[in-house]
Amino acid sequence: MQTTFTIPTRGQGLYEFTDQVAAWATGTGLLTLFIRHTSASLLVQENADPEVQTDLLHYLARLVPPATDPAMSYLTHTYEGPDDMPAHIKAALLPVSLSIPVAAGRMALGRWQGIYLFEHRDRPHSREVAAYLG
Amino acid sequence: MQTTFTIPTRGQGLYEFTDQVAAWATGTGLLTLFIRHTSASLLVQENADPEVQTDLLHYLARLVPPATDPAMSYLTHTYEGPDDMPAHIKAALLPVSLSIPVAAGRMALGRWQGIYLFEHRDRPHSREVAAYLG
Amino acid sequence: MQTTFTIPTRGQGLYEFTDQVAAWATGTGLLTLFIRHTSASLLVQENADPEVQTDLLHYLARLVPPATDPAMSYLTHTYEGPDDMPAHIKAALLPVSLSIPVAAGRMALGRWQGIYLFEHRDRPHSREVAAYLG
Repeated sequence: MQTTFTIPTRGQGLYEFTDQVAAWATGTGLLTLFIRHTSASLLVQENADPEVQTDLLHYLARLVPPATDPAMSYLTHTYEGPDDMPAHIKAALLPVSLSIPVAAGRMALGRWQGIYLFEHRDRPHSREVAAYLG
Repeated sequence: MQTTFTIPTRGQGLYEFTDQVAAWATGTGLLTLFIRHTSASLLVQENADPEVQTDLLHYLARLVPPATDPAMSYLTHTYEGPDDMPAHIKAALLPVSLSIPVAAGRMALGRWQGIYLFEHRDRPHSREVAAYLG
Repeated sequence: MQTTFTIPTRGQGLYEFTDQVAAWATGTGLLTLFIRHTSASLLVQENADPEVQTDLLHYLARLVPPATDPAMSYLTHTYEGPDDMPAHIKAALLPVSLSIPVAAGRMALGRWQGIYLFEHRDRPHSREVAAYLG
């Protein structure tokens, strides 16, 4: 079966939607999520300490600085804003699809793992994640 | 069903093969692509503005410089050329497999998403991508 | 069918378990592996020259230095040790799931490809990888 999850975002950061997926992924099979965008990502990360998410966000902001940073002066695709091309780069480095086995309605997530949409743009967006369970 | 796509490459860069995959991925199910190499990657990226691909290529060339760059002097696996070990590193950072839901012969790709083979070596290669639709 | 592979680790590095997976993945279908942790990764990489693995490990240690490195002074999630938050970051950059087509009991791995668990923590761990073949 297939569905689409719609995740509203309010700027760069991680948005957990584990519960939405868990409620839909009943039965036994393989769950696949696919994000339909090139400036946001999917991520499985720790959902215990929110500092992990903050640190991850800061690390990526340093690894891929905004186009206004002198280190990024070689960028040419800049007319959609200083956060746009860095968002495409982050989307290349982080997952676009995730696959998780499901047994008797339970995803094989580890104790501390949550499913996140990782927004790389500054402005609010409505993000679509295609889901497949088979 | 399964097949193998063969993608010829002519040096580092992104080679789109969305149309080949779309022509093969009929029906409804889950499409999976798997690249059978450790010095090239798969990637879903924007297919509208070619500058996005150029910038991505330049970013990765800076993130993982050739073995001849002083910053990479610690590399030991260098006998296959200065582009070889950086290619393995890029292949570790970018996707080796991709999964995309398909409904009624239509992949769940977003409006601006294309499927690319990302070649990390300088010389021409013939790259194989195993495909599964089930 | 589903199973769980348990991989013991003894510090940061790559641990190959291709043979274990190959012995289990009989028949024809799609194999998916999912790691149930946020401080270790899955990886498909060259299994010919062990220097590739050493270089990859060194590259990642420079890309994501320990929390004690001045470059990482902005990290806040540090109470689990200097290797903990860098491990989460590496786990975000490297695969959490892998999908590989299987035909007649043979995975579509290329000639030089092996399947690895990539441990990012210093201390020994027992890592679980959920597997699905369908």
